[in-house]
Amino acid sequence: MDPDAVAKAFVEHYYTTFDSNRAGLVSLYQEGSMLTFEGQKIQGSQNIVAKLTSLPFQQCKHNITTVDCQPSGPAGGMLVFVSGNLQLAGEQHALKFSQMFHLVSNQGNYYVFNDIFRLNYA
Amino acid sequence: MDPDAVAKAFVEHYYTTFDSNRAGLVSLYQEGSMLTFEGQKIQGSQNIVAKLTSLPFQQCKHNITTVDCQPSGPAGGMLVFVSGNLQLAGEQHALKFSQMFHLVSNQGNYYVFNDIFRLNYA
Repeated sequence: MDPDAVAKAFVEHYYTTFDSNRAGLVSLYQEGSMLTFEGQKIQGSQNIVAKLTSLPFQQCKHNITTVDCQPSGPAGGMLVFVSGNLQLAGEQHALKFSQMFHLVSNQGNYYVFNDIFRLNYA
Repeated sequence: MDPDAVAKAFVEHYYTTFDSNRAGLVSLYQEGSMLTFEGQKIQGSQNIVAKLTSLPFQQCKHNITTVDCQPSGPAGGMLVFVSGNLQLAGEQHALKFSQMFHLVSNQGNYYVFNDIFRLNYA
């Protein structure tokens, strides 16, 4: 499958799940997975989802501006780099963000091994 | 060596070189290295540096806001995620950017295997 198509499908699935059922993201991570969220380091699928579900907003909508991807090496992994904005319910202005994922293949299924998220303050 | 210290040292070296002697970046890439610059895909150290040295500005200064890093897997690679702003000579406003690097170890020396750069338009 075309890597750009995989990246685009992953990005759509990830943010749709984030915006509709954040706890459902747990299946995209594994025990070795890492998230750095605004500088805070978290490891493991349960801890990562606990962080994401405890963020101080309930409803949000990610709007994606760009998606870039590259193979990460001979093992079949893929780097996905996203920029966009995050609209929180009840807030007038959207927040710009950048995020990168390292997708690693496990018996043909990708999971998120690395995840780094940053807001880009205006 | 502490991965955060390696990442910080790399970032300082990379942008100092970019701002003072862009052609000197060639030694940080190898033939398999990939750059995606504002969506344009380029491969190989010579092609990457040809792109960077042909950007339509001569003097610039990168100011780094955040540096995050994570190990990319068992092979000893490292992901470095940077946000900051880019001041072009003669321009009033700096441009915000995000960039990620995948550093791969080759006999103890790191080189840039993946590089993805995006401006974050305000």
